[in-house]
This record gives sequence, structure tokens and C-alpha cells, in this order.
Amino acid sequence: MRTSIATVCLSGSLEDKLYACADAGFDGVEIFEPDLVVSDRSPEEIRALADRLGLSLDLYQPFRDFEGVAPDLLEDNLRRARERFATARRLGIGTVLVCSNVATATVDDDEVSAAQLRRLGDLAAEHGIRVAFEALAWGRFVDDYRRSWRIAERAGHEAVGVCLDSFHILARGHDPAGIEEIPGDKIFFVQLADAPALTMDVLSWSRHHRLFPGEGAWDLGAFVRHVARAGYGGPLSLEVFNDVFRQADTRRTAEHALRSLVWLEDRAARLPGSPPTLQRIADPDVPTGFDYVEVKAEDTGDVEAVLGQLGMTFRGQHRTKPVRLWSSGDSRVVLNEQHARDEAPHLAGVGLRVTDAAVVSDRARALAVSPASRRTQAGELEMAGFVAPSGLEVFLNDRDLGDEPAWVAEFEHGHAADPSDPASGGGVRAVDHVNVSHGRDAHDEAVLFCTSVLGLRTPPATEAAGPHGLVRSQVMRSDDGRVRLSLNVAPGGVRHPDHVALVCDDVVAVAQRARERGLRPVPVPDNYYDDLRARFGLDGQVLATLREHRLLFDRSASGEFWHFYTPRIGRLCFEIVQRVGDYDVYATDNTPVLLAAQDRMDRAAAAGTPTAGRSGGRSS
Amino acid sequence: MRTSIATVCLSGSLEDKLYACADAGFDGVEIFEPDLVVSDRSPEEIRALADRLGLSLDLYQPFRDFEGVAPDLLEDNLRRARERFATARRLGIGTVLVCSNVATATVDDDEVSAAQLRRLGDLAAEHGIRVAFEALAWGRFVDDYRRSWRIAERAGHEAVGVCLDSFHILARGHDPAGIEEIPGDKIFFVQLADAPALTMDVLSWSRHHRLFPGEGAWDLGAFVRHVARAGYGGPLSLEVFNDVFRQADTRRTAEHALRSLVWLEDRAARLPGSPPTLQRIADPDVPTGFDYVEVKAEDTGDVEAVLGQLGMTFRGQHRTKPVRLWSSGDSRVVLNEQHARDEAPHLAGVGLRVTDAAVVSDRARALAVSPASRRTQAGELEMAGFVAPSGLEVFLNDRDLGDEPAWVAEFEHGHAADPSDPASGGGVRAVDHVNVSHGRDAHDEAVLFCTSVLGLRTPPATEAAGPHGLVRSQVMRSDDGRVRLSLNVAPGGVRHPDHVALVCDDVVAVAQRARERGLRPVPVPDNYYDDLRARFGLDGQVLATLREHRLLFDRSASGEFWHFYTPRIGRLCFEIVQRVGDYDVYATDNTPVLLAAQDRMDRAAAAGTPTAGRSGGRSS
Repeated sequence: MRTSIATVCLSGSLEDKLYACADAGFDGVEIFEPDLVVSDRSPEEIRALADRLGLSLDLYQPFRDFEGVAPDLLEDNLRRARERFATARRLGIGTVLVCSNVATATVDDDEVSAAQLRRLGDLAAEHGIRVAFEALAWGRFVDDYRRSWRIAERAGHEAVGVCLDSFHILARGHDPAGIEEIPGDKIFFVQLADAPALTMDVLSWSRHHRLFPGEGAWDLGAFVRHVARAGYGGPLSLEVFNDVFRQADTRRTAEHALRSLVWLEDRAARLPGSPPTLQRIADPDVPTGFDYVEVKAEDTGDVEAVLGQLGMTFRGQHRTKPVRLWSSGDSRVVLNEQHARDEAPHLAGVGLRVTDAAVVSDRARALAVSPASRRTQAGELEMAGFVAPSGLEVFLNDRDLGDEPAWVAEFEHGHAADPSDPASGGGVRAVDHVNVSHGRDAHDEAVLFCTSVLGLRTPPATEAAGPHGLVRSQVMRSDDGRVRLSLNVAPGGVRHPDHVALVCDDVVAVAQRARERGLRPVPVPDNYYDDLRARFGLDGQVLATLREHRLLFDRSASGEFWHFYTPRIGRLCFEIVQRVGDYDVYATDNTPVLLAAQDRMDRAAAAGTPTAGRSGGRSS
Repeated sequence: MRTSIATVCLSGSLEDKLYACADAGFDGVEIFEPDLVVSDRSPEEIRALADRLGLSLDLYQPFRDFEGVAPDLLEDNLRRARERFATARRLGIGTVLVCSNVATATVDDDEVSAAQLRRLGDLAAEHGIRVAFEALAWGRFVDDYRRSWRIAERAGHEAVGVCLDSFHILARGHDPAGIEEIPGDKIFFVQLADAPALTMDVLSWSRHHRLFPGEGAWDLGAFVRHVARAGYGGPLSLEVFNDVFRQADTRRTAEHALRSLVWLEDRAARLPGSPPTLQRIADPDVPTGFDYVEVKAEDTGDVEAVLGQLGMTFRGQHRTKPVRLWSSGDSRVVLNEQHARDEAPHLAGVGLRVTDAAVVSDRARALAVSPASRRTQAGELEMAGFVAPSGLEVFLNDRDLGDEPAWVAEFEHGHAADPSDPASGGGVRAVDHVNVSHGRDAHDEAVLFCTSVLGLRTPPATEAAGPHGLVRSQVMRSDDGRVRLSLNVAPGGVRHPDHVALVCDDVVAVAQRARERGLRPVPVPDNYYDDLRARFGLDGQVLATLREHRLLFDRSASGEFWHFYTPRIGRLCFEIVQRVGDYDVYATDNTPVLLAAQDRMDRAAAAGTPTAGRSGGRSS
């Protein structure tokens, strides 16, 4: 179906919005009247710009407080409507949204409202315009789409139909199945928004907290299927009022919005009983594991030192690029010094193993994701890849050579992998998860990227208190847990290091050997061990082991989690974890301990003083 | 009464928090257990630090999920309690908070819970500790303070009493009058938080949206009076979980917190029937008008040019400082070039007329406000002043000389004020309001400053959409409207210019003369006038006048508002307004037009291109 978006979803001037929508690939837009009012461009200029950009102008909105009024007010409302229809004509727009009356309705009578809409229909028809009547969730008398349709039907005018907005229908808990009883040609417009499951007054919820489809709590796929089964042939349009999107980058938000709409139509198309008007894109192909993680810096030497302390093996230098590979078991860390002048070590990319990279690439392209390219020479493996919203490069690998990915053969002059050691000896075995921090305004986009493009799932989000505020964390994972990404939102201005968590089967041994090789893990305070004893009633020997190696600990109903962190190296650190039993989460309770310790180390480093703590700190 | 605060209200490490609380003037703190757990300081070190800083440690909290459990779980809970009591002893804290059980309660029986609390009391007494039992608003069985007291009373143990938290009581809508039926010596602790009137789930409301007293919707004065009348003699302590405060500057938040507590006790003390244990501070003395506004810059020449265009009069240079004065009618603009190297023009201070400056200063001092000083020479007027949270300096004047403030005589070599012109001729007559922008994390503090120190009122806040996001606006005003400050919160990273609004009786004449003198007001787009016609049905002549002078317009039930803005000068602009009839608000509907036009001018200035628009733009 055609794609459209209300200009109110985006930041910037009206021209900025039109350019961004066209570049993202939308077919059309709804002009939100206040965006036109504040613009210095005439309606004719906006029309001409949209024509040049190949955008249709699908709707002019909103026209408020029309129906259900006393006769004298009706005349003034018709005068107002005439002005708005004239503006719509100047914009070349054929459909005007009429919201159900909130402020001035005094007559609660379908017949009166229908008669008034009939007069509006006459006026609209004179201007060559149709009016789409919409029940607002907080309308004075009309707050249910079934009633707005009943009134529009009773109006019996060819220029009068309805607009259906998923927010107003689902926020009130109304069953959208009734949409299928409305003739498709009387549904003049469809607006879509998702929303989080909040309990708050519906007006604030609507004005500030709407989300793009796929980011909230509602089943919009089923909603769109109802609309399509009704025979609606117009655009699917987004109308998302959200404080964050309003202040985010216009172009990124437009791409993000289109991605959500394409994802939604695909989802609806996959439901049983969906009509062929709904278009599918390539199937999702959920990654089966991490192929590698890539760390980039002008000088990756400090990272190599830590990988060595953790017992990983240097596998060689890339034959044509200043790129080095370390591995242990099935974990691989690529260290990239290309074009990294002045860059501190940071997580630059992840490789994912997929069944068919071409299918994932097709799906990503359909979802408006930018491709990434890898510089390859003759004989080297070409890999499909793309850039995630955070800037992280994601490459896809569907080719192995024996136990290892085929591309490993491009690295020379390193040690051989020895499958019996160190991984089988309790050393690092695989990448457990990758933890990425970004700002509040990048978060929803990143989550939607992971769900729509990669097909990852979202368990409930968590929160942890850090010394500079709350850190929200959303894990994205494959069903089997072999791919887990944790997306963290830190308070404004705070940037916690990203981290790569490596899993082993004997974290005490890894910690012991790492310490012998000189690693000083993030110092965990004594108070933490007193707290562990109180919380879990751990026996003295276990507690002594944890304390000796400064390990963190958690227990769930299904198992235990033992772990420690390396100090920050640039914008990155490593975590070593051991999962005992079926422990399947992330010890969120320990995050405040980590954040406080990192903060102490950062402050000590800034002040040039050593950190305190029995385990000793390392300030760089 | 003694003042205290829970460490969870503040950002930073535990030591940061103790230093900030001591500096702000708190008598004591509650140690929030997770703050201790993540700290690398031992409990003994914290105790010693608090002693040195003169802070009492009033409460160790929270101990969770104790009562109403099965017998086997009770034993483990007592084991946990023993650990926590030991820690409290190491901290030298005599009172531990026990929250009503949320997670593990299975027995809904007062007698069982009382018996279990009695055992806890025995254990506590062995450690020399008292336990304060608190009903959480979301407790499994105990969610009402009247029930927590019933259980504590039935426990009949000298070491068992209750903790009363205004949030848990008022969020549930429970009547706090019942507090007076609890013996004061069984109220072991009182925690205070305000909250906005939100409709949301009570747990999220509590964890993220609490406010300091005076900033929310609740009558905490009455609450404190109930507590005092019950005979409670412990500290009044703040426990405010708020996402913003958690990430704000520790010291500023501590001062802000103390201010709210002192204000609250004063408010409670002024209620009829308050006992003498509640302390009053100096009376509020609401300002009666603006004495002056002060603009500071390395070079204030551009500001002088605009003031001249607006018809104001140069009144002279200060006799000992590089400071100049312009006036018109009762409006005065002080231009200050002292110590302003590299500073663009910005609003640096306001002078307020008060009845008795000494009283206001006393009140400000009691409310932990920092004093500001003015460099004075022999024979010059000494003025009391202080620094508002935004950094704005506020000076108080209670002395006039004839029609003008006494300090005007310090300016020399300017023109005389002529009361018949320009003000009486329709020119600028007075300062109407001052509009200040600040970040989200400064907002609550600034509002509390204006209400508690200056005694200003807060009409409902408004919102306006700008090209980079929503701008929230809170007007602070005296009852008669002669002092109005508008505090604006712009989206992250956006800084709109502050503005000074000057009122006149003939804005068309001021605009006309200003244009003749070369002023190009902020260009208002044609679409705006089309919208005005549609909205208000204005007649052609009025519309033509508005359009010719590019004036903005609003109408309320009680009058009209005509206004225009000068271009930005540094971080400042001026607004000229005319209020017709009893129009008493601020034309918030026009704010998006202003923000969009300012954005176009800023972008044009950055790009070096002229702005479009029939009225002509000016890009600097």
C-alpha cells in the first residue's frame, strides 16, 4: 500500500520535512496545518516543491470542533471550513481531516451531527474536496470510531467518509474488528501510531508518548489487516506525536518512520486471511550467532594487551589491511586501525552468522537501511553489511570453512587456533553479549532496527541507578540466546563504555590467570560482599572466592551468574561471564556496582590519583 | 524541626552526597542502602566522615519483604535482618526502615504480622536499633498507614514504630488527618515528597516523578502540621525519587532540597492550629513591580541601537562603572559592560521593587539562597540581592526618589526623562514580562525559587511546538500581574533567546516609528494572516494593519493582545506588546510562529543568505 506520514512527526521546517520524507522513500505526506501556518512558503510553493520531490500531499489536517453545535455556531464553523478548504485547494490536497468536536459540541444527537456533516460535505464538494471524519479518543460526544462511521453513513454524502486512527481506537480499548464492516471506499484515510502500555490520561498519552508501529504494545498488524480487508485503498499514514522524535534529526526520523511502516505492512501481510493488497518483503532470517566483534582505534595495542591477559590467541594480521584478529573458542575480536586517526578504542561493528546473507540484505534494503561496504581485494570474501542507527556496522556471514568462518583465512602470521585450549580448558568460549550505549533519541530507532531487520526479540526493559542517573537497558536477543545485544540509554551527557561480554566455563580460572598476567579488574567494594552475604546467605568459602577474585555474583531461580569487568580501554571494556545452570539474564542488580566503580576509576584517572580498594585499582 | 534527606535524592558518590548535604545546611541524612553497597568506603569511614561534617545519620533504608510470611521464610528474613542491623550499627544508625512486604507476603493477618514484627523488634533491640514500619502504596497486604500503625501497635514492642511517607499516603488518597491519632513517640520517622497530579501506575509515579515539597500538587503543609500535632519530634526528611534530580548537580540539588524543606516547615507553621515546634522564617514580600532589567555584554551597542528604535531614552552613563541606562515611562534597561569579555548580549539580572528589601533578604537567606553583591562606591545605593538558580541576579529596591528609583541619580550625562513622551504618547510604558530559557534540570529549582523566595504564583504551564521540539513554559506572576516571569524549558541542546517584553498603549505606532528608524521586526509569514482570518474572522482593515506591520495577534474572552518581536541580539530579543481590555495571558498560540521565524533567521545568518518574506528579514 502507499506510504505516508504526518509532518508533525518530524522536526524542522516544512521544507526540511518534505525533503526528508522524499529521501526516505515515502510516497506522500499529510500536511499538519500548524506546520504550514509557521512556514514562510506559500501553499503554492509547498505544492510545487512536493511535485518536484515526487511526494503526494494526501491530507490537510486537522479541522476541529465542527459538528454537534448550535445553529449559529454552525454558520461560523462553515465560514472557517470555507477558509480551510480554500487553503487545501491551494495545496492541491483533496482530503481534509475533520476531528470530532472536543470544545464546542452541545448537541449529542447523531441525526444533528449527520445533517451538519452533510452541509460540510456540500461545501467540500464545491471545492472538490472530501472530508474524513475522525472520532478523537477524547471527543465530547463522539469518541468511538463506530459512532463516527454511523454519523458519516447517516450523512449519506459522497464527500463525507471517515478517518481511522489506530491510536484513538486502541487507546480506548475498542475492538478494531468492526472496521471490516465499513465499506472500503468510505474509509477516506488511515493513520497509524503505536504506544507504550502506560496508564495515564489519554490526551497526554496521545500528545507526547505515541510511538512508531512496532515500538509499542499494540497489535498494529491485526489493525492493518482489518483495514485492508475492509477494502481500503488509500495510504497507510503515520501520525506519531512524540516529544523525542520532534527534536531528533529530521532525516533519521523519516527513515526510521518508513522502516516501521514497511515492517508493519509486511507483518500484516503475513497474518492469516490477509488480502493481497498488503505487500510482503523478504523473510526475516534471525542470526544464529556472533561471527566477530570489531574494535577500532588509531592504536589497538591496549586492547591486545587485555585480550592476551584474558587468554585469547593472536591469530594474525590481515593480508592487505592494518587489521588483526584474536580468537578463543568461537569468539573472535577484530582490531581495526584503518582510518582511525585520533580515535580511542571503541566498538565499531559486529559480524553475525546468518543462514542466507542475501535474504537478510534484501530485507534490510526494503526497510530503508543503509548498506555498509567492506574494502575487499581479489580472493577475499565479500560480505553483505549495513549500518545500524547507532553507527555500528553489521556484517553478515553465511560461509564457514571447517570450524571457523571462511574469512579467517585472510589473516596471516598468527598462532593456530587450538580447540582444546584455552576454550575447552575453561577459557573464553564465545561472545555472550554485546552492550552498546546511545542517547535517548537513538533508542527507539535502534530497537526497531533490531526487531525489524534482524528479527530479534525484546524482553522487558530494566533500569539501573548510576552515579549520574538512571540507565535504561533493553536487551535484544534471538530465541536461543546465541545473539544478545543490550542497548543502554544513559542520562543526558553521560557516556558509559560499550562492552563485549565473553563467556567461559570457569570464570575463577580466567580471572586467576588474567591477574597473573597483570590485569586489574574493575575493583568491587567490600560492602558489595557484605550485601551478597545478607541477600543470598552465601557460605563462607563461596564468598571468599568471590571476594578474592573481586567477582560479581547473581542467582536466579534457574542458575547463577559469575562475572567481572576489565577496566575501560578508551570507550570500551570487556566482561567475562560464566553462566551456571540455566541462568539466562544479565545480573542487572550488579550494574550500579559497575557504574559506581567505573566512575571512581574515571575520576581518579582525571585527577591523577590512584583508586582505593583492597583489590587495587588501575586508573587507565 | 531537624532537616534530613535520603541519599537517593542526589547524584554522585556517597561521599559527594554527604559533602553536599552538609554544605547546603541539612542536619542529617538517611543512608539509602544501595548507595552504601556501591561505595568503596567502609561503613565506619562513612560514619567518621558524617561526624566530621556534623551530619547525623538518621535512618538506614530500606529493609524489604519482611512481614506476613510463612514460618520458614521468617527465619531467613531474620537472618537477613541481623546482617542489616549489623551494618546499621557499623554506621552508627539507630533506626532502620522496614517497608511493608511487596513480594513474599502470603499471610494477610494483622496478628501474624504483629508477631513477626515483635520478633524483629527483639532482634533490633539486641542491636540497640529501632525499626520503623512503613506501608508502601503498593504493599501486598499492607498499603495504608493506618494498617501499618495498627500492626505496629499490636506488636507492642518498644523497638517497633512506624515511618510515615507523604507519597505513600497521599498517592493512595488516604486522609492524613489520622496521623494525629498515632502517639508521637511511635512515629519513628517522617519522609516527605511531593508529586505532580499524574494519572499513572503508582510504582512508576513513585520511582520517577516525585518532586520536592512545593513543586507538586499536594498540600504538604497540612501533612506536616498533622505530624507535628501528633507530637513527632524527629527530623523532617526528604525522599524524592526523580530521574532529573538523580542526574543534576549534587550541590545544587541539595540546596534546592533544603530550600523546599525550609519553605514547607514555614508554610506548615503558618497554618491555623500549628504547634510551636514548627519554625517560621521571615514573611514573603511579593514584589510590586520591575525596577529594571539588566543586559550584559562586552559590547552593548547593538542593544542600544534597538532601544533607540523602540523610542526609549538614553539616561546616562553610571558615574563610576561602564554601565548605561535607558528608560521609557516606568521601564528601565541597564546595559552593563563590566567584566563581560567575549560575552554576547544576554539577560543578566532583574531589579524588583519590594516593600522591605531587608525582609526579602532574610527570607532568601533562610531558604539557602546565595547573596549577590553590587560594587558600590561612596554615596551610591546599596542594594540587597541574590543569585537565582539560573544564574540571573535579582536585586531588590525599596527606595524611590520622586517618580523614579533612587539609584537612577547615579547616571550622568544623559537625557532627562520626559513623562509626557514617549510613554504617554503611546510609547513603551513598562516592563510587561521577562522570558527566561533554561534546561530541563534547572526548571523545578527555578520554579521553587520564585514561589518560595519571591512569593510568585504559578498559573498552569503551557507548551508550544518549535522546529526543534516542544517548549514548555511556566509563567510565574504576582497576583496583580505587575511582576511576570516566564520560565521556558527548551528541548535538549536548543537555546532560544531570552526576551524582555515591554508594554505600550499603541503598538502600531511603536512599530511604525521603529520601522522608520530602521528596525526590521521578526518576519511573520503570510500564512499566519490567512490563519488569523480563518480563526477569528477578523475584518479586512484590522487584518491589513496587522499584516502591514507584521504584528502578531490573539484574542481571549476578555480582550486582545497585539505584539511583535525584535530580531535576536546575541542571546536576547525584545518583544513589544499591547494589551487591549483585560487580556491577561501571553498568546501562546503565536509562540510556534516566533520560534519558526527565529530559526529561519538563525539559519540564514549561519548560511549568510537573506531571509525571505514580504516584510524583509534581517539576518543579524
